[in-house]
Amino acid sequence: MNIRLIFKTLGKILCIEAGYMLISLLVSLYYKENILPFVFPIAGMLLLAIPMTRLKTHKTVFTARDGLAGVALIWITMSLFGAIPFYINQGFGSIINCWFESVSGFTTTGASILTEIESLPRGILFWRSSTHWLGGMGILVLALALFPSIGERAQNLMAAESPGPTSEKLTARISTSSKILYMIYASMTILQIICLLLTGMDFYDSVVNALASAGTGGFSVLNAGIAGYNSVAAEIVITVFTGLYGINFTVFFLLITGQFRKAFRNTELIFYLSVIAIAITLISINIYSIYQSIGQTLRHASFNVVTIITTTGFSSCNYDQWPSFSKFIILCLMFMGASAGSTGGGFKCSRIIILVKAMVREIRRMITPKRITTLKMDGKPLLESTISNTAVFGFLYFFIALASLLLISLDNFDLTTNLSATISCLSNIGPALGDIAGPAGNYSAFSPLSKIILSACMLIGRLEIFPMIVLFYGGAWKGTCLKSKVQR
Amino acid sequence: MNIRLIFKTLGKILCIEAGYMLISLLVSLYYKENILPFVFPIAGMLLLAIPMTRLKTHKTVFTARDGLAGVALIWITMSLFGAIPFYINQGFGSIINCWFESVSGFTTTGASILTEIESLPRGILFWRSSTHWLGGMGILVLALALFPSIGERAQNLMAAESPGPTSEKLTARISTSSKILYMIYASMTILQIICLLLTGMDFYDSVVNALASAGTGGFSVLNAGIAGYNSVAAEIVITVFTGLYGINFTVFFLLITGQFRKAFRNTELIFYLSVIAIAITLISINIYSIYQSIGQTLRHASFNVVTIITTTGFSSCNYDQWPSFSKFIILCLMFMGASAGSTGGGFKCSRIIILVKAMVREIRRMITPKRITTLKMDGKPLLESTISNTAVFGFLYFFIALASLLLISLDNFDLTTNLSATISCLSNIGPALGDIAGPAGNYSAFSPLSKIILSACMLIGRLEIFPMIVLFYGGAWKGTCLKSKVQR
Repeated sequence: MNIRLIFKTLGKILCIEAGYMLISLLVSLYYKENILPFVFPIAGMLLLAIPMTRLKTHKTVFTARDGLAGVALIWITMSLFGAIPFYINQGFGSIINCWFESVSGFTTTGASILTEIESLPRGILFWRSSTHWLGGMGILVLALALFPSIGERAQNLMAAESPGPTSEKLTARISTSSKILYMIYASMTILQIICLLLTGMDFYDSVVNALASAGTGGFSVLNAGIAGYNSVAAEIVITVFTGLYGINFTVFFLLITGQFRKAFRNTELIFYLSVIAIAITLISINIYSIYQSIGQTLRHASFNVVTIITTTGFSSCNYDQWPSFSKFIILCLMFMGASAGSTGGGFKCSRIIILVKAMVREIRRMITPKRITTLKMDGKPLLESTISNTAVFGFLYFFIALASLLLISLDNFDLTTNLSATISCLSNIGPALGDIAGPAGNYSAFSPLSKIILSACMLIGRLEIFPMIVLFYGGAWKGTCLKSKVQR
Repeated sequence: MNIRLIFKTLGKILCIEAGYMLISLLVSLYYKENILPFVFPIAGMLLLAIPMTRLKTHKTVFTARDGLAGVALIWITMSLFGAIPFYINQGFGSIINCWFESVSGFTTTGASILTEIESLPRGILFWRSSTHWLGGMGILVLALALFPSIGERAQNLMAAESPGPTSEKLTARISTSSKILYMIYASMTILQIICLLLTGMDFYDSVVNALASAGTGGFSVLNAGIAGYNSVAAEIVITVFTGLYGINFTVFFLLITGQFRKAFRNTELIFYLSVIAIAITLISINIYSIYQSIGQTLRHASFNVVTIITTTGFSSCNYDQWPSFSKFIILCLMFMGASAGSTGGGFKCSRIIILVKAMVREIRRMITPKRITTLKMDGKPLLESTISNTAVFGFLYFFIALASLLLISLDNFDLTTNLSATISCLSNIGPALGDIAGPAGNYSAFSPLSKIILSACMLIGRLEIFPMIVLFYGGAWKGTCLKSKVQR
């Protein structure tokens, strides 16, 4: 493991985070609030980062292992510093609460331990929402856009942070790809801010809600969530935009570069849109008896389906009061999540498609054993390593969910709460099902142990399992620790 | 597909079932009860079977496909005839209830729709319990023992019915293997009857409880289940014997033939016993506050852990009132189930072992990509096809569980009930969690649609998914139906 290179990169990341936090400090200044919650962490990050960025490295190549372990380490450090403003400001309670809220922000989960939001300073709430934006597209992607010379084979870093079973390159140069991704991302966010302003929402709320939508996060600045605005227009804007953020950004790149045909024939896009349409239809039929009006039914069904499948987790109503059938569809959408290469979390549509294709092939092979077939997706052959990797991902997801469920069940809440909270955190959604952590509740009732477990789930989910495993897997560090110490 | 050969085998199976049902008719005669519920199905089976067994077949080779589809067809037909005594006797309600109870019996699930059991005739209850015994070891294994000349490559039939990812041959001849298996099975059952008699249980109850234990079924003849006997000795006998039936029968064969070392070093056996020990310990610590006595705590923890992991489903107390942590362990045990090649159901310990080994290998491969390793189990290399087959089995299990959950959630019960009922039926356990289908409840509250879905789950679980898929997969029949019709 190339520890010096990883720490050097971590130094650069902390500089970016310090710069990014400065915006929240300026917001605090504008609203004449206490800026100390930001001054200390910014100073701390810079003090730590400057010697780190000056580390000399013999090798500048990121191996796959370096990429995985590095990304995990970077995200944990970033979340630790992100929690400091919450802790200094107070109002979030214990240090574990602050860590939970920070991880929930960066991983774009949006699960909160806050019962009272509106009384908090605007600068702090701005920081809380802006963590979503940075976490959505990824801080390493931003670092690669800003420092093109971060190291050789930096695609191993980007691949470890980007969601999905395969990471497609938009352009030959990885730094150019990163710039394009952030440009699309920023443009869409600005467009959403403008749309929200047009619905009559004030500037501050438009910005924070756009940041939370773009990252598919779901932190709200009102106690009642998006329902608090009581604006159908705002709900429509948020539904459309979060729906877009759940699409693979490669599709937008294809659209910008005029490759419309290729964009609209993307298998995952068709699957994603079909699932949304089917889920809205089934839920609408099921909940019509509650709302008694087609308009209201469609409004709540579409808002909640899109906000859940994109793993945003805003809520326009308490879907926990829907019938079991609709709630189970919500739970399935929670697990599935959005598209690979989007800002959304979850298991990802493309993984479901790959697994279903592989299953059908195995069943066919069982019936006619001699037939050998190569699976394809979007016209390109699927590598066998991608298929086995996806399968392993699936089982790891399952076993991690079981382990988490077992530990949080010590809190003695019901199975629905435990199961949906685990899936919600692993998929980076936010609200779960049930009274406790459902759309009308929050995570404050969980024990400190459960909060630590659930925040670990968020990181595992956002970084897609493997980085966290490599970081904590003894074998990965074998021989490397000592060597690096000698080199220093 | 060799349809004539499949039907010819089905004919033989129906003869065996008719002969087996005759025992229940004799029990009815002994207790001077109405024998008509048995006369009609026996006559029906024989009338159908005789022309079938006379079918002439050109080819006598069972392909893997024939084995899979044949086994599925045989089990469905067998369950249909098994339901007739319940229907004629009345007291079970609708025809769907009778089908549910029959499938639940043969698949050794033991989920019941009966609210009042004790008032039913003894002959009928004897039939109900004896379906467990036949289903436990498998009717095809019995057929292969009785008719050694059933066809060539009959191992394809046996493999399709025997649970587990690999089917080991005890001896070179498949009919000899079948005979040995049934001899071990019958000896253990007789031994259990004797042990139960020694605890003071009467003869009839000893026999039916031994039949239900041997098949790891779980139907009881008392409304209160095993708790109704209020006998610690009987509970100990049942715990020990069901625990034994959950072990791979190959282990018993090794013990009988003096290969002690090989028997006790069996990976799955060690894993199975370790899981039982860990589960009992964790649950005991968790429920001690309820029972306030080490004896009572260990009694209920061990009885219920063993009855659930072996997928028997007897109950000595209402474990639904235990804390969430213990209930979640119960749910995990429900999913995992017993050993491959045992009479127990579930996902099987060996599949868990294979998946964990494959996962660890993939993670290692990710860290050091050049290393190529072959996985081993009990000293023998694991075939890559076994690994991929196990993985596909896992995902199919998951997707089937999701589909079942979605459909039964239309009944609008809570998620805990729906989830645990689905797992309970897929794993052939019987009781679920929650008030409705928990150990103190039964399945009568479910809608007819849900009962059909859940009975399909039982068959899918008992036959381990693939036979049912091949039977209902259009592609498997392509070209074969017409050809066979022409041949006739």
